[in-house]
Amino acid sequence: MREVFQQSLADVQDRLIEIAELVAEAMAKATQSFGTSDVALAEEVIENDPVIDEKTVALDELAIDILARQQPVASDLRVVVSALRISASLERMGDIAEHIAQLTRMRFPDRAIPKGLKGTFTKMGELDVELANKLAELLRTRDVALADEIRNADDKLDELHVSVFEKVLSDSWRGEAAATVDATLASRYLERFGDHAVSVSKKIVYLATGDWVPVADDA
Amino acid sequence: MREVFQQSLADVQDRLIEIAELVAEAMAKATQSFGTSDVALAEEVIENDPVIDEKTVALDELAIDILARQQPVASDLRVVVSALRISASLERMGDIAEHIAQLTRMRFPDRAIPKGLKGTFTKMGELDVELANKLAELLRTRDVALADEIRNADDKLDELHVSVFEKVLSDSWRGEAAATVDATLASRYLERFGDHAVSVSKKIVYLATGDWVPVADDA
Repeated sequence: MREVFQQSLADVQDRLIEIAELVAEAMAKATQSFGTSDVALAEEVIENDPVIDEKTVALDELAIDILARQQPVASDLRVVVSALRISASLERMGDIAEHIAQLTRMRFPDRAIPKGLKGTFTKMGELDVELANKLAELLRTRDVALADEIRNADDKLDELHVSVFEKVLSDSWRGEAAATVDATLASRYLERFGDHAVSVSKKIVYLATGDWVPVADDA
Repeated sequence: MREVFQQSLADVQDRLIEIAELVAEAMAKATQSFGTSDVALAEEVIENDPVIDEKTVALDELAIDILARQQPVASDLRVVVSALRISASLERMGDIAEHIAQLTRMRFPDRAIPKGLKGTFTKMGELDVELANKLAELLRTRDVALADEIRNADDKLDELHVSVFEKVLSDSWRGEAAATVDATLASRYLERFGDHAVSVSKKIVYLATGDWVPVADDA
């Protein structure tokens, strides 16, 4: 029974890695489309989001099946519940990549990135992709040092998010209302993606160390 | 054993109702503070959010304890997993109420609601409070007709959300960048609260009818 459980957990882990990689790819394409007004690439991200959704639903069904058939208790049970929570966060991260792609499509053929913020948003996009890739790596290697790197990258993301508002609210800002709306929404999405990544990384650390993390941690 | 399980579920339900009522109260105060620039009321919402967080964590621990001790299977198991998901969404709805209160505090003593949008935001706030109250009622009564009412209220919320952007992007918009940022964020928060409410209502309907809802439904 123990071996069956370990094999089931390995299956759960493989699926989480696959979903994290899909999210990283979606965010890479979404932020590239946002930076270059590449509407075809944006469409691709939007069309592919249901794949991430389906894979998270399938993973949840697997986790529920493991709970039903193998009736894990104690830390084994918490590992399976963690997987359900990680899956929900990854699904939301995929949605955020889709929202960025939708901003690109909405403004096309105009640029979605407001003037004067190109460097900031490029950096934020790179950080988000880095975070998602590190999550996949953390899932794969259980190297908890990666969780610190994820937290540090999220701190940089938060600073850049604040700097977007400083720019938009400064006297030098010449953007139209549309540019202000886009900057506000994009910055919020990119920052929120980082919050989810930190939340997921804490849960993966639990899988590696057994330190249970309460759910209310991604405010 | 069956009786013990039913008693445990009744406990879970009571706690979900309590949390939903706290969320409704938080949103009522948050939107009132936002409309009247009542910074003391906003502070109250911000100070009380940890209470909602703690109660959702305690509920999750109870659900995990039920899984461990009573080892439910089939639909009983899905009911407990649903409770975990509902709890996570309610916690996020509490966070959103806090975000609205933070907007109020950030702009104080100025008004956070931009000129020309007072009526729209008042209506959106009322709809959000109505949604949260209906969720508590749905949890209490299992009257699935309430889920339709929640969906209808969310549709109205979505229309108002779109109307905020139409207003902000119209030629008649005279708001400064700060007003545009506030309108964008507040509208996004109020609309997102509705998405969570619909997502929760679907899961409560499952508790009442046994129709399982996949998790990827609040995009």
